[in-house]
Amino acid sequence: MITIAAFKWVPDFARGFVRDLRLRWALEEAGILYEVQLIDGERQKSDEYRQWQPFGQVPAYRDDEVELFESGAIVLHIAAMSKSLAPADRSGQARVASWVFAALNSIEPHAQNYIHLRDAVSEELKKAITAKLHDRLNALSDRLGDEDYLENRFTAADIVMTTVLRELAAESALSGFPRLQAYVDRNEARPAFQKALSDQLADFDR
Amino acid sequence: MITIAAFKWVPDFARGFVRDLRLRWALEEAGILYEVQLIDGERQKSDEYRQWQPFGQVPAYRDDEVELFESGAIVLHIAAMSKSLAPADRSGQARVASWVFAALNSIEPHAQNYIHLRDAVSEELKKAITAKLHDRLNALSDRLGDEDYLENRFTAADIVMTTVLRELAAESALSGFPRLQAYVDRNEARPAFQKALSDQLADFDR
Repeated sequence: MITIAAFKWVPDFARGFVRDLRLRWALEEAGILYEVQLIDGERQKSDEYRQWQPFGQVPAYRDDEVELFESGAIVLHIAAMSKSLAPADRSGQARVASWVFAALNSIEPHAQNYIHLRDAVSEELKKAITAKLHDRLNALSDRLGDEDYLENRFTAADIVMTTVLRELAAESALSGFPRLQAYVDRNEARPAFQKALSDQLADFDR
Repeated sequence: MITIAAFKWVPDFARGFVRDLRLRWALEEAGILYEVQLIDGERQKSDEYRQWQPFGQVPAYRDDEVELFESGAIVLHIAAMSKSLAPADRSGQARVASWVFAALNSIEPHAQNYIHLRDAVSEELKKAITAKLHDRLNALSDRLGDEDYLENRFTAADIVMTTVLRELAAESALSGFPRLQAYVDRNEARPAFQKALSDQLADFDR
C-alpha cells in the first residue's frame, strides 16, 4: 500500500498548489490507489516526521519497498511503475528525468522568485528577475513548439512542468507565452488532474 | 563513448563552480572515461545545441544510448552505471534520488538567492532570505548529525549536495554550520573531486 503525506492545513492561497498534488496526479494517471496522512504543525516539527521528510515539508512517500521525499524523486519513482507515465525504454525514462529536473531547477526557482520577490525589490532587480524567467520560458516555449507534450506523448515530466507553470498562470504571468498557457490548460483538463485537485482540496475540509 | 558539454569560457568567479563539475566528479568516482565538448557563445545560441540543451546551458550529456540535460538527471544516470555511486538495491537508489532533488530544489534555490540577491535587497528581505536558507541548512545539519555522508556511504547524492554547499562555503556562509563545512571539506578532499576540478579549470586554458 502507498501512503503519502500532505498538510492538514495551509492558507487559502496555497490550496490547490501544495506539492503533494504532483503525487496525487501521477498516481491517478497510473490508476494506483493510495492513502493520505495529513500532517499538522506539531507533527511537522517532530523528530519522527523529520526522519521521513528532513525539512518538515510535504510531500513524503512510503510503499512496501521504499520511503522517499522530494516530489521530483517520488514522481519519478511512481513513473517507473506505470507505462502511463513514461516510455518503457531506459533512454526515454532518462529524458523524462531530464525534464523533471528542468522543471524543478531551471524553471521553478525563477518562477518562485518572480511570484514572491518581484514586488518587494527595486525596479532594476524586478526587471532582472523578470528577464531571467522570460529567458527560460522563451526557451521552453521554443522547444515545445507545436507539440502537445515535452516528449512525444504525455509523461510524468508534463505533470511536474505543469504544476510549476500553473503557479505562473495563476498570476497571469503566462500571457506572453500562449503555447505555455495552452500547455497548462491542456494538462489541467485531464480527468486525473481534476480528480487529484479535488481530492487535495477536499482533504483540507476533513 | 561518453561526451559532456562544458563552457569554453566563463568569468573568473565562476571557474571551478560550473555544473559540468558534477558530471566530471561522478565519472571520476566511477572510473569512466569521457570526452569534453567545449561550447562557445555562438554554439550556445544555436538551434543545434538547443536541441541537446533546451536552455543553452551546460552541462549536456550523450552516450551510446541516451542524450540528456540537467546535471541532476545526468548524475543519476551515471550513478545507475556504477556501484561506487549508489547502492545496488532499488530502495537505496531511490533515496539517492531524493537527496539529489533535495540539493537542487530544497537547498540550491535558497543558496543562490542568498549568494546573488542578499546585497541587492532591503534589510528586511535580506533577513527573510537568510532565515529561509538557515532553516534549510539547520535541517540538513540535524539530519547529517555525526555521519560522514547523507546515506550510510558515499553516493552520487554527496556529489550534488557538496557542489551546492561549496558555493556557500566560498562566501563564508557555512561558518555557523560546522558539520556542513566539515562535510564539504571531507568530500572536496576526495581524489576524484580534485581531478574533476583541475580538469575543469584546465579546459578553460585549452
